[in-house]
Amino acid sequence: MKKIGVALLGLGTVGGGTYEILTKNREYFKKTQNLDVEVMQILEKNIKRCEELGVDLSIVSTDIDAVVNNPNIKIIAEFFGGIEPARTFLIKALEAGKSIVTANKELFAKHWTELEAAAKKGNAGLYFEASCVGGVPIIRTLTEGMQGNHILQIKGIINGTTNYILSSMSESGTAYEDALKSAQELGFAELDPTADVEGFDAAYKLSILSSLAYHKRVPLEKVFREGISDISVCDINIGKELGMTLKLLAISKCKNGKIEARVHPVFVPSTHPLASVSGSFNAVFLNGDAVDDIMLYGRGAGALPTGSAIVSDIIFAAKKETPDRYPFMEETEINDNDFISDFSSKYYIRITANDEEGTLGKIANIFGKNNVNLLSVVQRNSNKLHSVPIVFVTSATKTSTIKKTVAEMSKLAGVDAIRAVIRVEED
Amino acid sequence: MKKIGVALLGLGTVGGGTYEILTKNREYFKKTQNLDVEVMQILEKNIKRCEELGVDLSIVSTDIDAVVNNPNIKIIAEFFGGIEPARTFLIKALEAGKSIVTANKELFAKHWTELEAAAKKGNAGLYFEASCVGGVPIIRTLTEGMQGNHILQIKGIINGTTNYILSSMSESGTAYEDALKSAQELGFAELDPTADVEGFDAAYKLSILSSLAYHKRVPLEKVFREGISDISVCDINIGKELGMTLKLLAISKCKNGKIEARVHPVFVPSTHPLASVSGSFNAVFLNGDAVDDIMLYGRGAGALPTGSAIVSDIIFAAKKETPDRYPFMEETEINDNDFISDFSSKYYIRITANDEEGTLGKIANIFGKNNVNLLSVVQRNSNKLHSVPIVFVTSATKTSTIKKTVAEMSKLAGVDAIRAVIRVEED
Repeated sequence: MKKIGVALLGLGTVGGGTYEILTKNREYFKKTQNLDVEVMQILEKNIKRCEELGVDLSIVSTDIDAVVNNPNIKIIAEFFGGIEPARTFLIKALEAGKSIVTANKELFAKHWTELEAAAKKGNAGLYFEASCVGGVPIIRTLTEGMQGNHILQIKGIINGTTNYILSSMSESGTAYEDALKSAQELGFAELDPTADVEGFDAAYKLSILSSLAYHKRVPLEKVFREGISDISVCDINIGKELGMTLKLLAISKCKNGKIEARVHPVFVPSTHPLASVSGSFNAVFLNGDAVDDIMLYGRGAGALPTGSAIVSDIIFAAKKETPDRYPFMEETEINDNDFISDFSSKYYIRITANDEEGTLGKIANIFGKNNVNLLSVVQRNSNKLHSVPIVFVTSATKTSTIKKTVAEMSKLAGVDAIRAVIRVEED
Repeated sequence: MKKIGVALLGLGTVGGGTYEILTKNREYFKKTQNLDVEVMQILEKNIKRCEELGVDLSIVSTDIDAVVNNPNIKIIAEFFGGIEPARTFLIKALEAGKSIVTANKELFAKHWTELEAAAKKGNAGLYFEASCVGGVPIIRTLTEGMQGNHILQIKGIINGTTNYILSSMSESGTAYEDALKSAQELGFAELDPTADVEGFDAAYKLSILSSLAYHKRVPLEKVFREGISDISVCDINIGKELGMTLKLLAISKCKNGKIEARVHPVFVPSTHPLASVSGSFNAVFLNGDAVDDIMLYGRGAGALPTGSAIVSDIIFAAKKETPDRYPFMEETEINDNDFISDFSSKYYIRITANDEEGTLGKIANIFGKNNVNLLSVVQRNSNKLHSVPIVFVTSATKTSTIKKTVAEMSKLAGVDAIRAVIRVEED
């Protein structure tokens, strides 16, 4: 039976969960995987935490070199999160020939090229299933289940925090700030929620998944990103009346060799399967030219689901004779022509304007002049004394065009304010 | 670059689709998989079909021995379906050290133990992702994505034909025979629909998936099976009024080492995600002790989706240095105590009875005597002259108990007939 020594860097929530799965199931893995996986070293300062988990303190240290230089350790699983010291430690480990397993999406989204080079140097492997969509094996699906396909599109809800917030705004009419606060109280959002609510977390994941799907480096800076902190319940409710549900989606497409990748709030038809994914759940559609649509659904975060993905990667890595690497990530030069930045969407635009005769005509004029077609116009109510809300839905329009159109509109004398500009997806 | 010779046995719908994916994408696989996959031999009698697909006729033959004895062929993909000659050919191939790739669920459900032995003898591998849920990588998810889990439950819609029929009965009120006929016309059902409508196809798949999930041979004869040919629109409609949708589900559970596996029509709450999977789509929930629920959704059949899974397996197999086998399938003795045959479900029971005073009391008596608790009783309408329909929903009751109860009830003077006995799942 193959014996595999593993080191864990950090025993936080997911690290602790992983430790428990690995030790509790050691005999089970011998039987079912023909593998003896032993946790041989742990890097952790918090001795009390180690004691809580019943860790033999003789394997605990704070010295990364002792881990990297241990010839019995083949796989190092990292749970620090963030860039440093994870980056320095993992590069050391890879160069020393240890394969790495991690849920660290920020590190992979920002430094995969560097990790790739270190892995090549040390002939080690990179495993990061846990970085995207928690315990749902989306990376395995892309790399080991859809190889026969040209992948054409990824579309889904890959951030549980924002989905929780948007679901509670939609279901209970809670304002954004209150929904965020309740997500924080329930542990679905961090004290500093920026990474989630501004779409950074989803952009990290989309960059990783798109690179794997299209066999090409899709750098983070090529992922368009817009968060949900400006979303108001008012627009969610108007959307509902129009048969649409607001979600933060991550979408990427590859067409004729050109890649478009974007994270932003967007209205989807309320009948679309993604519309009914609520709370902190994640769901992703993968579209391949042979298999058509596959949807994966599950918990995108949490100690045990993420621990499940980490342990799956440890076992997967342990069995590999040729470690997994991604040569396309060695690309350092990025050709702007391979990416579409000025992409097209339908738009929902809500403005407030005075109700004087002629204002709507002037607005329509601006749309027309910019070649923006309107699919619908809804004037919510009419009152000569105050400004009234008007909602437009446009046909597919480029980002640059909509920006220009909205800027011109905001300067119109009769227009009080542009209240919301939100994309609309129809399929 | 590793070069892999492949032989295709049969060029039918899926075989042809596979041939097209492999030849069209040969350069793509060199680039993305670092593999040169070449179709080197094809076993096919129909020369016209070969010509249609543009196959070089010099690689076409009808001699399995020529294929098996070709040292350049490493992988043999089979598209005959059914037991013979697939079984004989694949055993020959495995013993000669060729790994096999197939969508043949019937063969695996009935002869996996034998295939396992031949694979062991020839040190070859077994790949059958395409046998279950078409292009959706459910086997890869179980074996390469959930290894850290004890899998507790599988539950889903894994037969597209019956789901198409039940969906059209439910959506348009079409009678079973008409829905079946339309499924046949659209190519969703075979001329002889028995394998699908009587649940054999789903039972084959559930036997395979359960064996993989629980690391234990779950023989076909341990899978309870009941088809949909007795289902009437009347019960689907009454179910709808009660907030339930009828589906043919495949369910297996492993609890305290005991396995329960079953395929049967069942009412699920109309709010359950499986209730909204309609037409020929498939969807499966996998529940693991660490990851909780994962759902996979996609096309369960079709030339390209199934071809996608076959090609994925060819690439997966080509990269393996240690071929995949399943030692637990060598078990030939099956211990009845490891399986639960007399499982519990809630039940929907519809009878017609005369409306004389006392009849309902006598029926209630029989339920009571057999310790069957009633969750609800609905008497549909009352008319002293004719027999009236009465619908009961019971709490969880063993199969044997419900059989005994229903048999006793059918002998009651006031009971006209037992019209339907259908299971109900609540979670």
